[in-house]
Amino acid sequence: MDSKLTVERKKWSENFSEWFHDVIERAEIIDYRYPIKGCGVWLAYGLKFRNNIVNIIRRLLDQTGHEEMMFPILIPEDLLAKEATHIRSFEDEAYWITHGGTTPLDIKLALRPTSETAITPMVKLWVRSHADLPKKVFQVGSIFRYETKATRPLIRVREVTTFKEAHTFHATHEEAEAQVMEAVKIYSQFLNELNLPFVVSRRPDWDKFAGANYSIAFDTVFPDGRTLQIGTVHDLGQNFSKPFEVSYEKKDGTREYAWSTSYGISERAIAAVITVHGDDRGLVLPPKIAPIQVIVVPIPYKGMEDKIYRNSKEVVETLKAAGFRAEIDLRDEITPGSKFYNWELRGVPIRIEIGPEDVKRAQVTIARRDILEKVKCPKKELVKAVQDLSAKIEEELKNHAWRWLRDHIQRAENLKEAQKMLAGKKGIIEIPWCEDNDCGLKIEEEVNARILGIPLTREKIPFMKCPICGRTAKNLVRLGKAY
Amino acid sequence: MDSKLTVERKKWSENFSEWFHDVIERAEIIDYRYPIKGCGVWLAYGLKFRNNIVNIIRRLLDQTGHEEMMFPILIPEDLLAKEATHIRSFEDEAYWITHGGTTPLDIKLALRPTSETAITPMVKLWVRSHADLPKKVFQVGSIFRYETKATRPLIRVREVTTFKEAHTFHATHEEAEAQVMEAVKIYSQFLNELNLPFVVSRRPDWDKFAGANYSIAFDTVFPDGRTLQIGTVHDLGQNFSKPFEVSYEKKDGTREYAWSTSYGISERAIAAVITVHGDDRGLVLPPKIAPIQVIVVPIPYKGMEDKIYRNSKEVVETLKAAGFRAEIDLRDEITPGSKFYNWELRGVPIRIEIGPEDVKRAQVTIARRDILEKVKCPKKELVKAVQDLSAKIEEELKNHAWRWLRDHIQRAENLKEAQKMLAGKKGIIEIPWCEDNDCGLKIEEEVNARILGIPLTREKIPFMKCPICGRTAKNLVRLGKAY
Repeated sequence: MDSKLTVERKKWSENFSEWFHDVIERAEIIDYRYPIKGCGVWLAYGLKFRNNIVNIIRRLLDQTGHEEMMFPILIPEDLLAKEATHIRSFEDEAYWITHGGTTPLDIKLALRPTSETAITPMVKLWVRSHADLPKKVFQVGSIFRYETKATRPLIRVREVTTFKEAHTFHATHEEAEAQVMEAVKIYSQFLNELNLPFVVSRRPDWDKFAGANYSIAFDTVFPDGRTLQIGTVHDLGQNFSKPFEVSYEKKDGTREYAWSTSYGISERAIAAVITVHGDDRGLVLPPKIAPIQVIVVPIPYKGMEDKIYRNSKEVVETLKAAGFRAEIDLRDEITPGSKFYNWELRGVPIRIEIGPEDVKRAQVTIARRDILEKVKCPKKELVKAVQDLSAKIEEELKNHAWRWLRDHIQRAENLKEAQKMLAGKKGIIEIPWCEDNDCGLKIEEEVNARILGIPLTREKIPFMKCPICGRTAKNLVRLGKAY
Repeated sequence: MDSKLTVERKKWSENFSEWFHDVIERAEIIDYRYPIKGCGVWLAYGLKFRNNIVNIIRRLLDQTGHEEMMFPILIPEDLLAKEATHIRSFEDEAYWITHGGTTPLDIKLALRPTSETAITPMVKLWVRSHADLPKKVFQVGSIFRYETKATRPLIRVREVTTFKEAHTFHATHEEAEAQVMEAVKIYSQFLNELNLPFVVSRRPDWDKFAGANYSIAFDTVFPDGRTLQIGTVHDLGQNFSKPFEVSYEKKDGTREYAWSTSYGISERAIAAVITVHGDDRGLVLPPKIAPIQVIVVPIPYKGMEDKIYRNSKEVVETLKAAGFRAEIDLRDEITPGSKFYNWELRGVPIRIEIGPEDVKRAQVTIARRDILEKVKCPKKELVKAVQDLSAKIEEELKNHAWRWLRDHIQRAENLKEAQKMLAGKKGIIEIPWCEDNDCGLKIEEEVNARILGIPLTREKIPFMKCPICGRTAKNLVRLGKAY
């Protein structure tokens, strides 16, 4: 192992891509050396971290009446092709199975790139009358995209191993749209629990999900100033229900097609946790999702080995009994300094050191991973101190991240200003827009950036003109250099 | 919904296959109406049941130093082909991806039929010296087999959605063989926790895993007398380590190839839980793995509705507080009788009824799913009663199942006897064998059944002769009509 991270202590945002690859591999999150580009192996520590994140969204969906199910990974070509816009978008992105053994298949099978076309035909079997609606299901699993662009761990991969997709079906369009808003609320809560800052935008028409009426997306900003989409919510209207014939009997005895929505969160949310909170020394994990919340490191001292060991053991047991994921590092082949380095790299939020002074004074030394600060704490106040500190770390990580995001949202009055901002610290640029698609596409071309969309909640904006057509701008639109 | 199960009350073992399909669908475990043969959808209730089972094996592997990871689903053809025996066995069974979008791939990708060839090349990167060994990893995920035989839910499918596979690497063959025995112990514990009876056999040479030195398998017997393999453990020797070049530096500085093992449990274990414990009314779930352990059903009575409701609510809250997965059925559109029927179908182990008499006498009525027996219990003894009853149900399910299996293991002295037994109640037949492969294959042919193998622990057997060659039999060998 080299020591890129610690030796130089350079501002990692200056070489974000290298830092990201490096920290993911060295902190043992994922090993991307698998012989297929864009496919990686979740290592033990990384998988625990990933599962803690997935369990948050599971809980939020469970609390709001979503049923977790598990659908097949394979989708027959004729099913994937039922919704015309959908297949146009995905046929070039799907992996296609043509053979079972040496036998050519009658009908090609796609590895699911998303599951609308696998789930909707099953819902057709389950929904008969209005009493069966709403139907809200979700699953967590792998999806596959044949990416031709450069792949990037967790961000642009060929097997997305962690795709949480929800699919809901409703009696009316009104209810489906209310569900879209519920999904926005659930995702906001989810990102809040991860202390991730975000903006919510309604994507422009040309960038909506293939088969949707409209798409709402969550974006955050990475240290290199580029934006990352970390969640999407789609109003699918009756676009899937009609070709798949999901209809229900209304109270008056007539039949109507159901109205559906879908929304997804992928491992990009995990990439965002790593990136938004991390620093030169590696990961900085929020206590809520850290596989190890507290690491206890005894600092040996000649003649006091036994006492230090017993004190350390007692501390870790006390913390475990109080419900913390606490561990003790008893390796004797490496120094305490190497241990600090190792656990800092892995982002353990709280380290407790116990040396001779600590034993003598019935205290412990508590080190925070996020701001690298150490304090002393009487042993008898240990549990409360760790509880309070955990809450404080969550809070401060969140505040710090939000401050950073707010500082990276800028307002431009014209294209020149926008270009300058996009050449500088980047982030999200807001610029007036008449909401005409042609003007939108021209803005993208002029500034060489992506339109993220208009804010979900329309702000009152000052009188401004669309930089392309000169008409009164109806709204501000967000721009960014997107991943 | 029809009512095949309840109306006839016929002995379900007489039409096992129909019963099995019916109960899986109607108890909402899996819906197999997905448009690809051998691919099903885990429904909400089924998925919870499945996860409770998977979490048992997770815990047992975690306790014995196995690290959970997650490997890619795709394996390049050249990797799958590195071990010659392995690819010969799997190339006709694998699904092959030939195209990404419309682009032909340079190298075909297989959907993993098992993961030796995905995991071993990664372990090569992780293992350098003896200090890195043993390395014990596992994952839980989907594998794929292009089955040409008739598919059967959970038993013979094309996407095995629940495959737990462990892969271990060791410094010596001795250690690898000790690991094989540890795996046998872990799987025995796992099946014990599910109250499933089993025999452990060393598979004959011609039926070992492709690439293994030898395979040990767990079999149980189904109500129709056919045997089902529910777990396998393989000594892989250096068969994979050599072509994949997994070598390590020994203490003396020389290098040696690692020794590996692999062992798997699939959703067949779930099929066995459903089948071994189920009855004419549907599922009978052991409390430990039941998604709902106790269902509380209020029995309305005119004028006492409020009291009955309040008592029922109190009972379910008390049970939840005591850690039970308890729920209350408050649907008012169906009768208590329909509720009983419904929860019996789903196998909820304990039902608590609360009617007017119960309220008056400060008692509850407790009904057992397994033996359909009802008892009264004072309300103040509720928690202890449910705890004791849960333990008793587990115990009695186990005893009942083991008695049944023991009754279905018979000893035959010659082929004629074996044929007669296989035409009758079937099960497992033990017959003398000289341990010569040719004689073994002839036995299979003569009796038209599969040799499951010799018992793992060699019993002292009476003097007997191999029914084919007439030489002294070294052992008894097990035969069965295998699924």
